Amino acid sequence: MRIALAQLNFLVGDVKGNTDLIIDAAIKARDEQQADLIVFPELTLTGYPPEDLLLRPELIERVQLAIAILCEEIDGITVIFGYPRQGEDGLYNSAGVLQDGDIIAGYDKSLLPNYSVFDEKRYFTSGSDACVVDICGVRVGITICEDIWFNEPTQRAKAAGAQLLVNLNASPFHTGKPTEREELVSRRARENGMPIVYVNLVGGQDQLVFDGGSFVMNAEGRVVMRSGFFCEAQPVVSFDGATPQPSEVIEHQSQEAEIYAALVLGVQDYVQKNGFKGVVLGLSGGIDSALTLAIAVDSLGADRVEVVLMPSRYTADMSNEDAVKQAQTLGVKYHIIPIEPAFRAFLGMLDDEFSGLAEDATEENIQARCRGIILMALSNKSGRMLLTTGNKSEMSVGYATLYGDMAGGFAPIKDVPKTMVYRLSKYRNRGGEVIPERVITRPPSAELKPDQVDSDSLPDYAILDEILRRYIEQDQCVEKIIQAGYDVATVTRITRMVDNNEYKRRQAPPGVRITRRAFGRDRRYPITSGF
Amino acid sequence: MRIALAQLNFLVGDVKGNTDLIIDAAIKARDEQQADLIVFPELTLTGYPPEDLLLRPELIERVQLAIAILCEEIDGITVIFGYPRQGEDGLYNSAGVLQDGDIIAGYDKSLLPNYSVFDEKRYFTSGSDACVVDICGVRVGITICEDIWFNEPTQRAKAAGAQLLVNLNASPFHTGKPTEREELVSRRARENGMPIVYVNLVGGQDQLVFDGGSFVMNAEGRVVMRSGFFCEAQPVVSFDGATPQPSEVIEHQSQEAEIYAALVLGVQDYVQKNGFKGVVLGLSGGIDSALTLAIAVDSLGADRVEVVLMPSRYTADMSNEDAVKQAQTLGVKYHIIPIEPAFRAFLGMLDDEFSGLAEDATEENIQARCRGIILMALSNKSGRMLLTTGNKSEMSVGYATLYGDMAGGFAPIKDVPKTMVYRLSKYRNRGGEVIPERVITRPPSAELKPDQVDSDSLPDYAILDEILRRYIEQDQCVEKIIQAGYDVATVTRITRMVDNNEYKRRQAPPGVRITRRAFGRDRRYPITSGF
Repeated sequence: MRIALAQLNFLVGDVKGNTDLIIDAAIKARDEQQADLIVFPELTLTGYPPEDLLLRPELIERVQLAIAILCEEIDGITVIFGYPRQGEDGLYNSAGVLQDGDIIAGYDKSLLPNYSVFDEKRYFTSGSDACVVDICGVRVGITICEDIWFNEPTQRAKAAGAQLLVNLNASPFHTGKPTEREELVSRRARENGMPIVYVNLVGGQDQLVFDGGSFVMNAEGRVVMRSGFFCEAQPVVSFDGATPQPSEVIEHQSQEAEIYAALVLGVQDYVQKNGFKGVVLGLSGGIDSALTLAIAVDSLGADRVEVVLMPSRYTADMSNEDAVKQAQTLGVKYHIIPIEPAFRAFLGMLDDEFSGLAEDATEENIQARCRGIILMALSNKSGRMLLTTGNKSEMSVGYATLYGDMAGGFAPIKDVPKTMVYRLSKYRNRGGEVIPERVITRPPSAELKPDQVDSDSLPDYAILDEILRRYIEQDQCVEKIIQAGYDVATVTRITRMVDNNEYKRRQAPPGVRITRRAFGRDRRYPITSGF
Repeated sequence: MRIALAQLNFLVGDVKGNTDLIIDAAIKARDEQQADLIVFPELTLTGYPPEDLLLRPELIERVQLAIAILCEEIDGITVIFGYPRQGEDGLYNSAGVLQDGDIIAGYDKSLLPNYSVFDEKRYFTSGSDACVVDICGVRVGITICEDIWFNEPTQRAKAAGAQLLVNLNASPFHTGKPTEREELVSRRARENGMPIVYVNLVGGQDQLVFDGGSFVMNAEGRVVMRSGFFCEAQPVVSFDGATPQPSEVIEHQSQEAEIYAALVLGVQDYVQKNGFKGVVLGLSGGIDSALTLAIAVDSLGADRVEVVLMPSRYTADMSNEDAVKQAQTLGVKYHIIPIEPAFRAFLGMLDDEFSGLAEDATEENIQARCRGIILMALSNKSGRMLLTTGNKSEMSVGYATLYGDMAGGFAPIKDVPKTMVYRLSKYRNRGGEVIPERVITRPPSAELKPDQVDSDSLPDYAILDEILRRYIEQDQCVEKIIQAGYDVATVTRITRMVDNNEYKRRQAPPGVRITRRAFGRDRRYPITSGF
């Protein structure tokens, strides 16, 4: 028996396009790969996660129509694909087994994740039965994603006679997830003495990136085939009975490589799937916009990226020099539009209202917002989407201007802590200087008032990021963080800033999730709170 | 037996403040109202909904400490209050019965809503046991909110011997909800032949408003006591055995009165609970900002509200006249800041980039964004929050400028369709003209280019709102809406506009939910979608 793993990039809601993708992959598996079975990711027909599209009756109708088309178009190979199934007592997250023009069996997902980024109990009812089908004389059990994280569904398949398990996934990336996932599945294989075929989705969907990394494990829990990460792939594995034969095993990547690839794919899919011509971004000479530009160019090519330098009275010469240098190195078109005329116009218009009042963050925000207007004007006129350049550290403490530097359709490094911004910048420069060295080594500054540097208002980023990681990703309380050796006043001030800036984050664009807990659907805090 | 119903306004996350509120209410019930029992709303100690604060271990610790304080501070009256209870196998949404310094019994919510605005399965485990306690010789059963929407939990209480049921609620408002809720509870009372004491939360929490309207029903399902709506109240009802004695029954309000009160309370609580000094808003001479101003003044008083007129080259004289007239009628401070200098500055700065290109929405957006900068500058300098003035019809189709007129901390009429904006404006003028008549009768216009009116780009609002209601609130598909008699091209274009503008709504501020399905936590659509 030969099994193909369809690690492909499906578009949420595009039932027709996803149907075509399934047909093409199945025909290729049958004719070019001599596969007997092809396995697709979870909810193949709708993409993942379809969210409240699942509440629209016409989505379910389109899925039923699509299944009829699959039955008509595919033969000569068994296909296991995912779809939402309308049962009498609710909607199920299901897998269908298509053989010779019929759906010969089906499996309803048993364990429905309803934590972190997942809301499956909002939509689905739990299944409770095992599904085992005979394919080329091997009894193949089916489970879906979360089912593999606990032992019961696998045990149930085994009890129903399964010799081999296939598991359909839409498992999103966060740092370390690829190895975490394999360790878990390895345990499951060993506990049940059963080989496992793990097929994952690939692609970006709003804030989620699915990393692929599909694999086949033998009954001893060892990987005998691993496909690539962050790319489409359709590997095929031969089985001797239920025993998988060794095949290509692509290595895991370094942490920086893994995160960088996630960001590139996330940006690429957001831009492509939403039909934008390209992107525009503000290049300040600082490291955040420099890294964002590198990611944009790696995602879309230099042709589809434009940058704007928008110096003010507080911008250092080296900022402009470094920005121009990077734009030239990467071959992207750049504009220079000083913001002074608009900034001066606003100060004049507000002169009466502000007379006698001290300068404060208001004037800094006006500058950031003048830049927002310029960038959005270029975006509106050209049809290129605006990329936002803020990182997770500043998003956490609110060190960013709403409608100013926070403006944009997508925020590639929104979930990347500042210390990781540095690591990724060095990583991107490994084969030659793309981000000017001085951008990496100079002290970071918002350049919104004279001689300003980030360290005027924030602790060292190494300290800040560790406090944030403990508070946001690990839910540690203030006392526990202090006990770990951090300064009382700093921890109190920083955690308070995180709490007080929920309102800003609520209006931020989505960005790629790379940590265990990103802002957005992952961390649902009230704005109004006396906590 | 006398039972007090504590329809009070609790602050999410403020465990200490909520504890004090419980103690004060219990002492008042005991000493001034001669009550034997006081019943509080669902999750009294944390407020509702606490969202991901429930994942923070220190919230649970604070709740445990608070319960110890309640036990110490309250005696001489039985108290039933809500709190998250950490059990061995998970967290429960619970009610505790406090009597003579001890928690003598407890109930764990059985039915956990996980649809619409609710995410309770993200946090809680379901309880399965009835809880019946003896109070003054009456066997009182306890259930929580969703439990009353299905018969099983009430039946279980009855089977366990309950003669009277108390139901703790945090039931949010939408139009028609108060009567819908009573009809349902009436059926429950009749089915089980049991009186029901229904205690609801009151107050605004981000996009939700809890309308109160607590009541007591007799075993025949008739209301014998109803407290007011959208206000705090602590009525007390006498019982003869388990039979409630007639008491004051406050009438239901008209639809306009109900919605208007929800908006006023929503704005008031957002501003107060978040500690803002007051609000600022742009007054254009159009009906949306006129209604928003009236709501703001009714919420906060004229002293705490400031408006800004920001005319452009396209603003009609009557717009300025009407805006000034309303500001004067309501006695709010107003500024006039023409946007021409900033608009001209931006056009000059973009002259090179835009030369040879036709004017389009870009130039309109620049005007809206210049206004956004002025408003945010005044907000930043004064500490007054910016109110956004957009309505649901424009939010649905994206007829609004991101970072322009969409800028702000809270959007009072975000869930109010334009046709209801007119009805509410007339309602507000019932006792005298607050909103100038001409604002209500003139054709609506964005005034962003010469002679522009809304009907250039949108169908009549009566038609638009009906299409939107069917598509958004009722999940009707395009075909079904057309079958109901609407024009094919219009329905196709409008529903497409709704789909395409999810990205804008994602960056919008929260606003008061008044319909069955508001944008925000209520309608979770993907941005990236091929649907």
